[in-house]
Amino acid sequence: MVSLDGRAGGIRGAERRQARRAQALPPAQSEPLKLAELNDHIGYFLRRLQVALFKDFIRTLAPVDVRPAQYSILILIAANPGRSQAAIGRALGIERARLARMLHELERRKWIERRAAAGDGRSHALFLTAAGDKALARIKALTARHEAQMVELIGSKRRMLLLELLREFG
Amino acid sequence: MVSLDGRAGGIRGAERRQARRAQALPPAQSEPLKLAELNDHIGYFLRRLQVALFKDFIRTLAPVDVRPAQYSILILIAANPGRSQAAIGRALGIERARLARMLHELERRKWIERRAAAGDGRSHALFLTAAGDKALARIKALTARHEAQMVELIGSKRRMLLLELLREFG
Repeated sequence: MVSLDGRAGGIRGAERRQARRAQALPPAQSEPLKLAELNDHIGYFLRRLQVALFKDFIRTLAPVDVRPAQYSILILIAANPGRSQAAIGRALGIERARLARMLHELERRKWIERRAAAGDGRSHALFLTAAGDKALARIKALTARHEAQMVELIGSKRRMLLLELLREFG
Repeated sequence: MVSLDGRAGGIRGAERRQARRAQALPPAQSEPLKLAELNDHIGYFLRRLQVALFKDFIRTLAPVDVRPAQYSILILIAANPGRSQAAIGRALGIERARLARMLHELERRKWIERRAAAGDGRSHALFLTAAGDKALARIKALTARHEAQMVELIGSKRRMLLLELLREFG
């Protein structure tokens, strides 16, 4: 398990490889668990690292109480003012009902506003408010700290390599 | 967005790069959204690929109604019979209450059993039942299909590279 704060939370790669090489032993509760088939599932490892990153993000952004999906929405609205709820949802792969709840929460905090889109009464164009703009500056400072912690964890070169590989599917 | 079934669900890497090179244009609802700062967040891309993989996993394993975390638990119990609930939870990073609910569900399906651990009445040793063993064979056949689909999506070489990189943090 990825340990962001230096305390071991589980099994590290090297120990696991060692465990796989070892003979079958009687089960001692202190022995690292065999990951068996999980070792070949990319989804398993993707999920582990993603959970570790999100935990660090949530912890680092606790002062502003912003979670990863909220952050993504704010960034997209700031960079694409006036776009529709549907466009934001499609771009982020957030399903309609969940997005509606999240936008409602961001409106409640007075960070975004919805205006009826010209020519389509059912659609809403999304904008950041001045307060949202100000909040985003503070949020970005905290996400920069989170990213610096991620470079620390992953290593600068490995982070770039992963980013390159993953962007192909983004 | 990763499109597993060939239907475009969002913006592909190449289009996005093109969009970034383009001049600022008046917002047309058909224009791809700028990802802006999200382009530099590894967590964003990890999450996107992880969600796509999990969706495919859930869809492919629908005939047996097994989700990724349930699968991980079954694999670990099969490979490490007699280990405690706490050890499984630690290895997978699943918090106690959620793991208890999931184990309860697997017991209800008669795939696993909990036996009081020798020397510790509060602890339970986990085992697969004969029915669980049989179910796991079917489940493994379906996960092999899922992995084949992932090789199709990601590419065999890129999958290995990602797996190597991600395992370091697993």
